[in-house]
Amino acid sequence: MVEQTDANGQVRNWLHTFERALAGADPGSAATVFGDESYWRDLVAFTWNIKTVEGRAAIAEMATATAPVARASDFALEGDASVADGVTEAWFSFQTAVGTGRGILRLRDGRCWTLLTTLSGLRDHPERIGHARPKGVEHGVARDRRTWLENREAEQRALGVTTQPYCLIVGGGQGGIGLAARLRQLDVPTLIVEKNARPGDSWRKRYKSLCLHDPVWYDHMPYLPFPDNWPVFTPKDKLGDWLEMYTSVMELDYWGSTECRHARYDADAGEWEVHVTRDGEDLVLRPRQLVLATGMSGVPNIPDIPGAESFEGELHHSSQHPGPDAWAGKRCVVLGSNNSAHDICAALWEAGAEVTMIQRSSTHIVRSESLMDVVLGPLYSEDAVRNGIDHDAADLLFASIPYRVLPTVQKPAFDTIRARDADLYRRLAAAGFLLDFGADDSGLFLKYLRRGSGYYIDVGASELVASGAIGLRSGVTIARINPRSVTLSDGSELPADLIVYATGYGSMNGWAAKLISQDVADRVGKCWGLGSDTPKDPGPWEGELRNMWKPTRQPGLWFHGGNLHQSRHYSRFLALQLKARQVGLDTPVHGLQEVHHPC
Amino acid sequence: MVEQTDANGQVRNWLHTFERALAGADPGSAATVFGDESYWRDLVAFTWNIKTVEGRAAIAEMATATAPVARASDFALEGDASVADGVTEAWFSFQTAVGTGRGILRLRDGRCWTLLTTLSGLRDHPERIGHARPKGVEHGVARDRRTWLENREAEQRALGVTTQPYCLIVGGGQGGIGLAARLRQLDVPTLIVEKNARPGDSWRKRYKSLCLHDPVWYDHMPYLPFPDNWPVFTPKDKLGDWLEMYTSVMELDYWGSTECRHARYDADAGEWEVHVTRDGEDLVLRPRQLVLATGMSGVPNIPDIPGAESFEGELHHSSQHPGPDAWAGKRCVVLGSNNSAHDICAALWEAGAEVTMIQRSSTHIVRSESLMDVVLGPLYSEDAVRNGIDHDAADLLFASIPYRVLPTVQKPAFDTIRARDADLYRRLAAAGFLLDFGADDSGLFLKYLRRGSGYYIDVGASELVASGAIGLRSGVTIARINPRSVTLSDGSELPADLIVYATGYGSMNGWAAKLISQDVADRVGKCWGLGSDTPKDPGPWEGELRNMWKPTRQPGLWFHGGNLHQSRHYSRFLALQLKARQVGLDTPVHGLQEVHHPC
Repeated sequence: MVEQTDANGQVRNWLHTFERALAGADPGSAATVFGDESYWRDLVAFTWNIKTVEGRAAIAEMATATAPVARASDFALEGDASVADGVTEAWFSFQTAVGTGRGILRLRDGRCWTLLTTLSGLRDHPERIGHARPKGVEHGVARDRRTWLENREAEQRALGVTTQPYCLIVGGGQGGIGLAARLRQLDVPTLIVEKNARPGDSWRKRYKSLCLHDPVWYDHMPYLPFPDNWPVFTPKDKLGDWLEMYTSVMELDYWGSTECRHARYDADAGEWEVHVTRDGEDLVLRPRQLVLATGMSGVPNIPDIPGAESFEGELHHSSQHPGPDAWAGKRCVVLGSNNSAHDICAALWEAGAEVTMIQRSSTHIVRSESLMDVVLGPLYSEDAVRNGIDHDAADLLFASIPYRVLPTVQKPAFDTIRARDADLYRRLAAAGFLLDFGADDSGLFLKYLRRGSGYYIDVGASELVASGAIGLRSGVTIARINPRSVTLSDGSELPADLIVYATGYGSMNGWAAKLISQDVADRVGKCWGLGSDTPKDPGPWEGELRNMWKPTRQPGLWFHGGNLHQSRHYSRFLALQLKARQVGLDTPVHGLQEVHHPC
Repeated sequence: MVEQTDANGQVRNWLHTFERALAGADPGSAATVFGDESYWRDLVAFTWNIKTVEGRAAIAEMATATAPVARASDFALEGDASVADGVTEAWFSFQTAVGTGRGILRLRDGRCWTLLTTLSGLRDHPERIGHARPKGVEHGVARDRRTWLENREAEQRALGVTTQPYCLIVGGGQGGIGLAARLRQLDVPTLIVEKNARPGDSWRKRYKSLCLHDPVWYDHMPYLPFPDNWPVFTPKDKLGDWLEMYTSVMELDYWGSTECRHARYDADAGEWEVHVTRDGEDLVLRPRQLVLATGMSGVPNIPDIPGAESFEGELHHSSQHPGPDAWAGKRCVVLGSNNSAHDICAALWEAGAEVTMIQRSSTHIVRSESLMDVVLGPLYSEDAVRNGIDHDAADLLFASIPYRVLPTVQKPAFDTIRARDADLYRRLAAAGFLLDFGADDSGLFLKYLRRGSGYYIDVGASELVASGAIGLRSGVTIARINPRSVTLSDGSELPADLIVYATGYGSMNGWAAKLISQDVADRVGKCWGLGSDTPKDPGPWEGELRNMWKPTRQPGLWFHGGNLHQSRHYSRFLALQLKARQVGLDTPVHGLQEVHHPC
């Protein structure tokens, strides 16, 4: 009890000192309450950016630049601080000049080790939820009143035709849909354009055995969580139906069967000119903000292999693979060894095909159950929910760990998994499978953040690889395609009726090149990755994911995406950035990212 | 703090004594811990019935009859007891031979005043939610595995065709849909048949200005609550869309465009033979349980008025009224003065019609805002949610007040409303409107429970009546219909282009007469009403709503319905009763209701 009082008092003192420094003549002096190793991560509250700075000098600079505009005040401890392993951790709330914020603070030896500050909402522009939800019916009576249905139909007819959306989202997957839902609660006129006919089609069209590899607690959409009977691993068609329902229930403006052909920024007008084809009809849209939510899994990587045109069987990218039904008894070659490759190989084997996986380089394998128990469980699980950590709290806790620190936090969990599943790893290695745990053994999530590839969350296929039921050729690639076979880089040959390129997808700014121009794509640079100087993630260190959910070097252009957890969490901050611009708030961006890699 | 400890101790002692008495040689001795005025309400846990008994003698009888089967144990206080106005109130949990239960206890002077016991779940047949939710994907691999979509499609093709549902629900409104969702989590094969094409159509087809008169916090469906941005008063089309989405997301088996023509019980086989026409094709279904969820608003009451056939304008029941659009400048007569009558009059006036309401007898008027603030607010509101009372807790708290006591609890609230809105009531009376507050001034909810009619939740029309914008003729009815007018019972005449019968609906066992036989309808008797010996609710006192959500005098026949709150809450207990029978548990019904009124 005494210790609790001490911890709370220590946090209150720290917050008070920090607040007073920020409000004083030298806001940079706030850095003096940070430790030698220290991090300040801000999500939009101070920086109008998604930004992590490291060490006292950078923290002082950020405080100096942002404090006069943010005018943060009323820092207050939320609940009780907790103490473990010499670290005092606490949630807090605060106010800024324009909104309310929440944060998480960690102290070591009385000084700040990690600080997270986030903008929760804009004071004069609250989300229309809870106490601010719409009435639905206007009580009282009025001549010529229109019903909800009439209003909604009129809005749908007008938007994009006689009125222009403030924000246009290209791509109607879970990312675009969740962001549009946030923007709707903030009254930002928003239109989604999507080449598929119906929301959810991008999932429905994928290979038929696909289920989400992350569990339900990780995957909720904003505002409308999955119900308690939702399966742990959502089958793709069920997710498709959910997204379609969500789009309707959230009253989103969604144009299916609409292809975005070209976009051009008119700097003088401060708006985009976006050419789309909707159900065969060409239209021009003029939004002020353009969000590319075309997905990490956007432009497929198609390897250029000699002889491909001579192949007499069927050859397609994993994104085009319909499933195994036609391939019983046939010989199938799958190039790649990540999630899709494993799923497709397993489904082909289940259907009675003879299947060989070509593993070009080492792959990180984690059993789904182990990932759930050891890595995700403390934050995203039924038990976490019962312990009071819902997904919103989990998202903020996860966001409070600076990317620089994350490998240190993650490595022990993956060490545990390595021991726990040692038998599987041994048998995979014996079968010739090339294993890794990431460049610094930090495991799956870091691989995902750094390069978005290089792993398989094992839901069963690894046993087939270990047992030889799925054939494996590792450390090679396909050197040449022949009419009825492939020749591998070691000179051996494999007969083939089907070849699947499970070779992944290109960087998201490939979409900017395709839809806008190479010039703009180069100006904004590579998306994703932390600058960790590990394979496929060149340095220098960025501290944040490049270009994601934050201002880019192209005015009015934004990138949105990531897994369901990231889309849910960061859509909140992207929506607030867009709303602030729509209503003309002053949004000086601190620390706009330098571009080190054009693509 | 001391008082808290005392209250908790008092409750623990009471529970312990009660439990020991039930488990002893003379379970009836449990009645000695009840007060002179005392009530035991049980929802399925002890009685396999929905049953309230009053006073020590009846309580002793119920304990004696049910304790040996229920074998209740492990009574434990949940949270802290609370003390107010001399009443100690506490939540508790307990176990029975087959399941888990929850209850609410109120003590006065150390003895029980009210006891609620409810069955929460069946131990060996848990709902597949939370920790028991399905995995969604079977990890591991298996030849010829079928995907979620393939399984779901196969199930839909088979049910009702090659396999028979255990339970058939006639009526696919919110009641049938919510019940089917509960049964699905309990793995009870269930089919809904509904004459409209799509879920939600029964709402979509109603008059276009209709919005729910109860607020969102009261209206949630099971498992999937409305999101935080849902409007307070749901517009009918939005509710229709939600129900359609819900049916899909919950994977319910729902046959739209299906008319139930006739049902016959085969006592030897213990199953129903139900003749339905689905999309024009005649089929026979053979469920073991038949649930009529055809709605309070089932068979329209159509008054037989001389001359109706000679009318040259349009005449229809409110259930057929499409809305006001065609009636600008026309003369409209609405017979009735309850919710639908007011809504329809207001919408006609808004559209520029000349409208007169014919009020046959006095009506209870409550402003929606007052109802929300004074009556519903403590249990169903944004503030209640923030105080930790979600709708599940609110449902149980509300259920814990015996119907005999409810008028005493409700009357002060309506006295408050009468004072608060005195000005409106005065002006309505001045306009000639006949007002009441129920037979004993107990207000709206008792009127609803006793007779299901006799009130308007004012969302604006009362001002139009008070101001004379809506014409009013009260204390009369339509005596005769002429080609272009109506003659009222006072001999006066009103010109009319449109006549709407806002005359309500018949008792639910009218559906049993229509679908099964008059004999079965007479055997089960009247549905709804408490036996309060007030207008339209003849005695004797029943203590519960007649025939609702509990066994009837016809084996295998059940009635489900009520407003969204009741449908949500009681569907839980109806589903558990059906599940128990499906798996062959012993379900001896205590106190099956006597039939005092065949119709």
